[in-house]
Amino acid sequence: MKVAARSQVPPFAVMEVIAAANARRAAGADVLNLCAGEPSGGAPAAVREAAAAALAGGSLGYTEALGMPALRAEIAAHYRRWYGVEVDPGSVAVTTGASGGFVLAFLTAFDVGDRVAVVRPGYPAYRNLITALGCEVVDVPCGPEVRFQPTVELLDALVADAPIDGLVLAGPANPTGTLVEPAVLAAIAAWCEAHDVRLVSDEIYHGITYGAGEVGSTGAGSGAAVSGHGAGAPTAATSDGALVVGSFSKYWAMTGWRLGWLLLPPDLVAPVDALAGNLALCPPTLSQHAAVAAFTPEAYAAADANVATYARSRAVVLDRLAELGWRDPAPADGAFYVYADVSSSGLDSVTYCARLLDEAGVALTPGTDFDPVDGGTRVRLSFATTPDVVAAAVDRIAGWRAGLG
Amino acid sequence: MKVAARSQVPPFAVMEVIAAANARRAAGADVLNLCAGEPSGGAPAAVREAAAAALAGGSLGYTEALGMPALRAEIAAHYRRWYGVEVDPGSVAVTTGASGGFVLAFLTAFDVGDRVAVVRPGYPAYRNLITALGCEVVDVPCGPEVRFQPTVELLDALVADAPIDGLVLAGPANPTGTLVEPAVLAAIAAWCEAHDVRLVSDEIYHGITYGAGEVGSTGAGSGAAVSGHGAGAPTAATSDGALVVGSFSKYWAMTGWRLGWLLLPPDLVAPVDALAGNLALCPPTLSQHAAVAAFTPEAYAAADANVATYARSRAVVLDRLAELGWRDPAPADGAFYVYADVSSSGLDSVTYCARLLDEAGVALTPGTDFDPVDGGTRVRLSFATTPDVVAAAVDRIAGWRAGLG
Repeated sequence: MKVAARSQVPPFAVMEVIAAANARRAAGADVLNLCAGEPSGGAPAAVREAAAAALAGGSLGYTEALGMPALRAEIAAHYRRWYGVEVDPGSVAVTTGASGGFVLAFLTAFDVGDRVAVVRPGYPAYRNLITALGCEVVDVPCGPEVRFQPTVELLDALVADAPIDGLVLAGPANPTGTLVEPAVLAAIAAWCEAHDVRLVSDEIYHGITYGAGEVGSTGAGSGAAVSGHGAGAPTAATSDGALVVGSFSKYWAMTGWRLGWLLLPPDLVAPVDALAGNLALCPPTLSQHAAVAAFTPEAYAAADANVATYARSRAVVLDRLAELGWRDPAPADGAFYVYADVSSSGLDSVTYCARLLDEAGVALTPGTDFDPVDGGTRVRLSFATTPDVVAAAVDRIAGWRAGLG
Repeated sequence: MKVAARSQVPPFAVMEVIAAANARRAAGADVLNLCAGEPSGGAPAAVREAAAAALAGGSLGYTEALGMPALRAEIAAHYRRWYGVEVDPGSVAVTTGASGGFVLAFLTAFDVGDRVAVVRPGYPAYRNLITALGCEVVDVPCGPEVRFQPTVELLDALVADAPIDGLVLAGPANPTGTLVEPAVLAAIAAWCEAHDVRLVSDEIYHGITYGAGEVGSTGAGSGAAVSGHGAGAPTAATSDGALVVGSFSKYWAMTGWRLGWLLLPPDLVAPVDALAGNLALCPPTLSQHAAVAAFTPEAYAAADANVATYARSRAVVLDRLAELGWRDPAPADGAFYVYADVSSSGLDSVTYCARLLDEAGVALTPGTDFDPVDGGTRVRLSFATTPDVVAAAVDRIAGWRAGLG
């Protein structure tokens, strides 16, 4: 019987790494796992307490398809607090993780056959989802020469042959951690409006930035200051026509709670509302009750403390790049990744990761998962853990690399 | 800027009813709400306790995209327990509600342009999702003359002009509660295999059936026995090529926990695994930990007690159909709905529901939400609550109907 052609997404190379890491652990050897895009800490205590209260408190039935009004109001207030931006709670859609937000965004913004531009390297689910939903992915290669982010000039060149219907942008991006500078984001948003292009701005790593106001600095050697008082990154929330994707998973370390949000332009509120009920009925109810407490001073403080830990872990890696033989790192403005060129090893990134795990017990992600064309030269290291774990991993990588000659 | 044409799903008429009910409550008047497809009770105590333990116990990070291996094994064991069927845990995909399961099922089974047959009346999200995902809905009208369920003869006639790629079937169905008889389900599954048609069998109401072994009996007047020891309904789990959709929402009353599952044919396991990570990363982690406890004797007993309550509530309605002026009810074999013809009132179902709420304070769902062609004559009453609430509602409907003349 037929299997849908559109479901044939490329397998992730990291899955091989994870399977090998699990096998290694099962055989009694240890693994330092720096391949997961997930904080090691867990949700703030205030969030867990709110979840416990909701669990004890009564029915956990369906909520409104766009989420509990109290949570939508809290998310809107968060934009005032962090960005000084007024957001109508009615334009906030609570979603089942940012993943659920992307599905809703793509289905309401793009029809079958529409052309959607996607930055390469990038989070692979963008292109896999866009393809599965029947749209065409338009490749936007962004290498070190443009700081791994698009520019207006690059978009002008892109549409010289054929127009596009959408653009997916991320800042801080995965796997690079790189931010678009505020003026460039504003210019890109204006370009999108002028060209009838829907901008989908992935801002799920907001709040995890290093060296506020220093967008574009690679920051090597810095025990960079944590922003501590806001997103530390520019938002597309003020742009007409743009969709913003947010999440509780990264800054608040609530990955398994599966909760995120969309900020919607006025014309997409009704379609998203109608479609959300059909796609998901509602986001997880217990997670929604818990997430209301994410906007308390206690929860912000707990999340900021995690970010301060990531900042120290980041410095451990960036200080020792030469020793690792890693070149040309993407500007790690935010998120918790270093994305660097390992080709001085003489190995392609898939082989590099396989041998590093097998011979030194460190798990990284091959760049091919984020960039099927140029990712063979790069790896992604996630430093969303404590500095001592990262330091131990760096010791191992450096020793292993020295042995390669 | 463009809004995607495929996102323009028809609004649900019940939303108007709910808005009017909320306005009525806000104005101080009471409402007996029998329009929600949701049990009033909440999750079994054993499930809540497992959730509390997981919440206290540590990190709630991402799980495997197809769900925790322990939960997949419990679901497989459930099929042995209830149906005597051996299911490979590797063919079980835990999903974010049945809703998440349908999206995965449709994307892996059907390409853009594929023709998918959908029974009318039926759960409206089937057709809305299939359309949004770029497939064509092929209407399968199933009225009282075929017990609101398809037959092999009907499918033969359907493909006389053009072949179909898929068939979505539900039993017990929403809004009718009607089951397909075991022999008919087996014949339809064999027909699908012979015609290269993917069968998607929605079995989310399994466990909520009345009068075990009495499939097809309308059961009016019966304080029907609860099955109490199994699904009480036939499954397509044994059919090659079919996908089965299951859920924790209905039998275990875990609606807001957003957890369901798919049983997959072997050729769809890898595509669903790959796509699930891109669509959702994983189902909600806390809900997964909790759901493991749904398969304990305590949780089955709690769920069966709810079903016994629904059975008494069901009898309250079915015993008084004549008094209500409701005709030709669908066989309420299972689920918690009565779907009946109200045209003796002289009102179309949307007007009927609006006036019933306004004049008597009872909220029902107009049939047009489930059947855009013939639903103007029918309403759906949900009896997923206590017999006294249902009796009070029936009193009001009967009194109001008598006043219509």
